[in-house]
Amino acid sequence: MSNSKPLILITNDDGYHAKGIVSLTEAMKGLGEIVVFAPDSPRSGMSNAISTSNPLRARLIHQEEGLTLYICNGTPVDCVKLALNEFVDRKPDLLVSGINHGSNAGISVLYSGTMGAAIEGCVFEVPSIGFSLCDFMPDADFTATTEVARSLAIKVLEEGLPKGVCLNVNVPVGKIKGVKVTTQTQGKWVNEYHRSKDGAGRDVFWMTGNFENWEEENENNDEWALANGYAAIVPVKIDMTAYDFVPELQKWEI
Amino acid sequence: MSNSKPLILITNDDGYHAKGIVSLTEAMKGLGEIVVFAPDSPRSGMSNAISTSNPLRARLIHQEEGLTLYICNGTPVDCVKLALNEFVDRKPDLLVSGINHGSNAGISVLYSGTMGAAIEGCVFEVPSIGFSLCDFMPDADFTATTEVARSLAIKVLEEGLPKGVCLNVNVPVGKIKGVKVTTQTQGKWVNEYHRSKDGAGRDVFWMTGNFENWEEENENNDEWALANGYAAIVPVKIDMTAYDFVPELQKWEI
Repeated sequence: MSNSKPLILITNDDGYHAKGIVSLTEAMKGLGEIVVFAPDSPRSGMSNAISTSNPLRARLIHQEEGLTLYICNGTPVDCVKLALNEFVDRKPDLLVSGINHGSNAGISVLYSGTMGAAIEGCVFEVPSIGFSLCDFMPDADFTATTEVARSLAIKVLEEGLPKGVCLNVNVPVGKIKGVKVTTQTQGKWVNEYHRSKDGAGRDVFWMTGNFENWEEENENNDEWALANGYAAIVPVKIDMTAYDFVPELQKWEI
Repeated sequence: MSNSKPLILITNDDGYHAKGIVSLTEAMKGLGEIVVFAPDSPRSGMSNAISTSNPLRARLIHQEEGLTLYICNGTPVDCVKLALNEFVDRKPDLLVSGINHGSNAGISVLYSGTMGAAIEGCVFEVPSIGFSLCDFMPDADFTATTEVARSLAIKVLEEGLPKGVCLNVNVPVGKIKGVKVTTQTQGKWVNEYHRSKDGAGRDVFWMTGNFENWEEENENNDEWALANGYAAIVPVKIDMTAYDFVPELQKWEI
């Protein structure tokens, strides 16, 4: 019965044509019924953004035994929401997002469309994983990442994930020494704009910058793992409440 | 000396012309030097999205003693990043975002551009607060919210906030009974799309839906406070690591 196979939903933020999602789809083959529901063009940096005032459209572009591919004009989160509300007939057993072309380690988890989709899967109580390779190139080599993705997908299909938790997986370039479970590196991006002129001589600002690591000595975070040749898995919580600060804040007179 | 006054950065996601940000700016008057740096048009639902491939533009549109107003073609997070990287000459003492037209309680914190801006302020280690009123109307009455905003701003200017924590403040319509410090209500949006046809008869999907509260009995969360006439303050953590699950995940064989 095809319905007894696990259902695996795949999306990304680089668009359905990117090598990363094609590689991820290959890596999931044989693990279940696959539905790819991905943006029709790149949506990098879209975080958890949703389209509140523009209509969404989706189009079936490919179907074969065990694999259905839709494209959508929305953000990664729109893709997950629309797929789960309107296009799949049962709750997926797994959502995988990526493989992103470029790191989503450290604070980048906040801005990442790849992780936005994984977080949205988690909102729907679907075990969800975002995968990123620390290489922005369109023809990046996803070999190591697909191996990690496949074994982690098998594990999550067996074990599930706790309610409200998804996984952010980043993989360094080249051969990897192994996989580390880590925390999100504290730090921020700095020197974030390149100022230039448009054709009429007006100032424009292009995003650029570099990551300032505030915890270089910490060997338990994702940036350390990546810098030392390991893939990094950070479990990500969707409840953002700062529980530790609640009692203190309750004492304030407002 | 004007430089000894606190510097207050104000932004939002409804755009610089919205009544909510005009009211919030009024509420901050007298508390410090104010810089408003806001989107040039609505950017609702933009979460922590950033513009990675389009150039940003900013324009000074108003200046008077103690108040400078810029508009920008980016997302709320772009506004915060661009203001802090390129337009202000010192780190603000406070960032306030809003007042949003519509609730950002519960899971909506993930999608909110208002909270995206507050979270970004927190990334920059600026004490940051997002304010939302549970009323979508353009002419909503912001009286109660501006009172909460002013007294909370004064308190945060005095006390600061812990590193990595910002505040999500939601206010119900009408008179309020008081202010409660709460947690983020667990739940999700359901029935999220209205399917209709475009002019050519093709299916389009418009975002709609309602919030399904998974913790109706919990009197410590933001939805309970709002339903019972209280403003709700949730402290929000920007480190999304699910620390509780790290030891368990480290035992997995991957």
